[in-house]
Amino acid sequence: MALKRNLTLKSENMSKWYTQVIQQAKLADYSPVKGCMVFRPNGYGIWENIQKSYQKLLDKMEVKNAYFPIFIPMSFLEKEADHVEGFAPELAIVTHAGGEELAEKLAIRPTSETIMYDMYSKWVQSHRDLPIKINQWNNVVRWEKRTSFFLRTTEFLWQEAHSAHADKQEAIDLMYEALESYRKIAEEILAIPVVKGKKSESEKFAGAEITTTIEAMMPDGKALQSGTSHHLGQNFSKKDAFNISFQNSEGQTEYTYQNSWGLSTRIIGAIIMTHGDDDGIVMPPKIAPTQVIVVAASQDDDIVRKTNEIKKQLIKADIRTSVDTSDQTSLGWKLNDAELTGIPITLIVGKRELESGNLTASIRFTKTKQKISLDNLVSNLTNLLDTIQANMFNKAVEKTNELRFSAETYDEFKKIMLENRGFIKAFWCENKACEKAIKEETKATTRCLPFLFNQESAKSPKYKEESGTCIKCGSKATHRWLFAQAY
Amino acid sequence: MALKRNLTLKSENMSKWYTQVIQQAKLADYSPVKGCMVFRPNGYGIWENIQKSYQKLLDKMEVKNAYFPIFIPMSFLEKEADHVEGFAPELAIVTHAGGEELAEKLAIRPTSETIMYDMYSKWVQSHRDLPIKINQWNNVVRWEKRTSFFLRTTEFLWQEAHSAHADKQEAIDLMYEALESYRKIAEEILAIPVVKGKKSESEKFAGAEITTTIEAMMPDGKALQSGTSHHLGQNFSKKDAFNISFQNSEGQTEYTYQNSWGLSTRIIGAIIMTHGDDDGIVMPPKIAPTQVIVVAASQDDDIVRKTNEIKKQLIKADIRTSVDTSDQTSLGWKLNDAELTGIPITLIVGKRELESGNLTASIRFTKTKQKISLDNLVSNLTNLLDTIQANMFNKAVEKTNELRFSAETYDEFKKIMLENRGFIKAFWCENKACEKAIKEETKATTRCLPFLFNQESAKSPKYKEESGTCIKCGSKATHRWLFAQAY
Repeated sequence: MALKRNLTLKSENMSKWYTQVIQQAKLADYSPVKGCMVFRPNGYGIWENIQKSYQKLLDKMEVKNAYFPIFIPMSFLEKEADHVEGFAPELAIVTHAGGEELAEKLAIRPTSETIMYDMYSKWVQSHRDLPIKINQWNNVVRWEKRTSFFLRTTEFLWQEAHSAHADKQEAIDLMYEALESYRKIAEEILAIPVVKGKKSESEKFAGAEITTTIEAMMPDGKALQSGTSHHLGQNFSKKDAFNISFQNSEGQTEYTYQNSWGLSTRIIGAIIMTHGDDDGIVMPPKIAPTQVIVVAASQDDDIVRKTNEIKKQLIKADIRTSVDTSDQTSLGWKLNDAELTGIPITLIVGKRELESGNLTASIRFTKTKQKISLDNLVSNLTNLLDTIQANMFNKAVEKTNELRFSAETYDEFKKIMLENRGFIKAFWCENKACEKAIKEETKATTRCLPFLFNQESAKSPKYKEESGTCIKCGSKATHRWLFAQAY
Repeated sequence: MALKRNLTLKSENMSKWYTQVIQQAKLADYSPVKGCMVFRPNGYGIWENIQKSYQKLLDKMEVKNAYFPIFIPMSFLEKEADHVEGFAPELAIVTHAGGEELAEKLAIRPTSETIMYDMYSKWVQSHRDLPIKINQWNNVVRWEKRTSFFLRTTEFLWQEAHSAHADKQEAIDLMYEALESYRKIAEEILAIPVVKGKKSESEKFAGAEITTTIEAMMPDGKALQSGTSHHLGQNFSKKDAFNISFQNSEGQTEYTYQNSWGLSTRIIGAIIMTHGDDDGIVMPPKIAPTQVIVVAASQDDDIVRKTNEIKKQLIKADIRTSVDTSDQTSLGWKLNDAELTGIPITLIVGKRELESGNLTASIRFTKTKQKISLDNLVSNLTNLLDTIQANMFNKAVEKTNELRFSAETYDEFKKIMLENRGFIKAFWCENKACEKAIKEETKATTRCLPFLFNQESAKSPKYKEESGTCIKCGSKATHRWLFAQAY
């Protein structure tokens, strides 16, 4: 069927498949502005569901939503040295507005630390004003030379949360809690297995003291950094930066400890690559904009009526349902379309089905059909959706496990990277020169130092201490880092 | 109490009160970027509730959400002559990005007609591809010289929906349906009475064939345009604009008929002005971020436990509830704070209340207290919230009615405008010269030609036909238009 719709096979060329399937399933389209994409309703609907899922976790963390200006005065960016160095090459700059040249040029936000923290310094006076925990759902711009749908675009959508605390440990605890919230979204909602860990010095966020990350492994053996949670220490709060100071309970002046964390539309790319197959998109039920599509097998009045009835019943039970009763396309075309866009379950309502009291359910993930009784339809479907979700995650875990390696020598490392790519665990001395050389020679970067227990939501994760030698230089190394080529 | 918190009285100087109350109640703050504001959680929460309410109406109209780039090539804006003329003076322009000067300058979207319709022309081939109904929740930028919180800011948040149709009448019907959806939000959710009508030629949206509007009257006698719904005809679809053409069922090429409609964060200003009083904000229950705050009268364990129990109970019943059990501020301070931020109901939980089984409820709108039994607490509160909502709307209608006038002569018109402002109904010949002269001499503009039946959701509204003479030039006039000074 894939050939019929002129879709490159995922198994043959994932990158070509990826670009094609996104356009054919109407998730996104190229825009006339270089590097920017259009999120079409089928793609934006995924983001809306991610927002709803993640909003619940933000609420639990008592983070409040707010909105700050998109414009950042250039002088603000320069207040934190690493921060401006990291973002300067990617900025889009407004020089003229309202028919006049601006006295101070404005950057379009690449991230909002600086504009938010300028306000925080105004709002924070006393320890009673802390903690501040604010999130924004917004658009940001980072000028990119090479772009790819969802994975890397000049403008993208994300959430960025920013907290300020009186106590350093309280901030660090929240950083790990936020990272765990990302693991939950990835694994429990998107059915994408991830590795939690911390970034090396050179891979840290520009301005952070600690950067933690969730890393996903794509079927082509390349890793996708899927969400990061940073502890910024006092880098932005100190006097010569944004001067966010407060009187502690003893009346002394202190500077706040801060975090930021962000999850972007890039993770939609991970959903597509992880679960898609030669026939198109495969959506995990928990994130699918449409979970069930009810298709009328003909334009017969009874059938159309029953189709709409079923839709109403399912929507009432909070199953995201659409119908297709149109006479514009054939049944075959409709099923093809549901398959391409990856709707988890397609229910066909025909004459035979109505007579027998059993509907035919096509399950996108397994490409199997099964009968579903009209009695207890809601609970049957709910169970089926749950089973699909669980099995999709399990399959993704299996596939990812096939791409997890460890290497004891640099030759072994290079061989694996050449033949399979994937995650490679290897001793590294934590010296930047070795990290850089490995990158230049193998295109692999340090993805993270994995936490000892991945599911660990404990506040202070541990790292496995071992005694070894750096695969690159042979000097003493105490940790095995996770390396991979990355998107 | 108002003096205590150093708030200008609304009854004495609404404009000063407005700026102060927004900052004191932490709805918004000035940003370091001229003309831009920061939406703080208390203010952004109002917008989130407007979004939730309006999203339901968009769903009913079968409008899908999507996202288009924030950047618009300058050449796009120039494709519709009136459109570029209308927006050119307000544009913010990106000239440099990624360290280089751009070949084509990019405008930050002031509205998205052009970038969206360029995509529509790609997506529409056949009548089967129509209608397209797409909405965006996004940020837009219009450079403003004089700004005011919510009412007029350089960057603001809104929804903009854009439809394309094969049939002109279908498009016009949807324009009226969209306008009616705005009336519902204003009157039924925000408790703000509005007048529905159509704009004069000179007050139309830049590029529209017909602009319809909802106009609200503020307590200071100035009108606030609160939402507009446009029929664009084929202005954007024709060949020399965006060329959105399709094969009709007879195989002939036609151009689409289009609409756009938008509702912005400016309407938050209308909520504040319409309902606020000398003591601060008064939030209508249906839009209030917090509907009920439960305040512990002391730090006694039993009281704190009961306070949290009540919160849980109310949240479970979908009443937006917060608690204040902190030991950082006094009970008086807590009540003051709930009053300033306009939370509809404050419940106080103290020792006496627990013993008697009756809580004290302070109602913000009426400034009265009443006992509420702990038995049937949820249904009691739900009823009370509904009553408050209804009474707030009724009071707003009454106040607005006091500001509705009609004038038979220009002298009368000028006198009313000088003494009361408000809405004035008056005959106008529909000649631009008279409209302009009236504006120059009285600062009053034509707000709209009101529909004969305001609540009318009928697809083709009627206008009252009368025989009269223009108040300005004395020539024949057939309609009484609504004039007002406007925000």
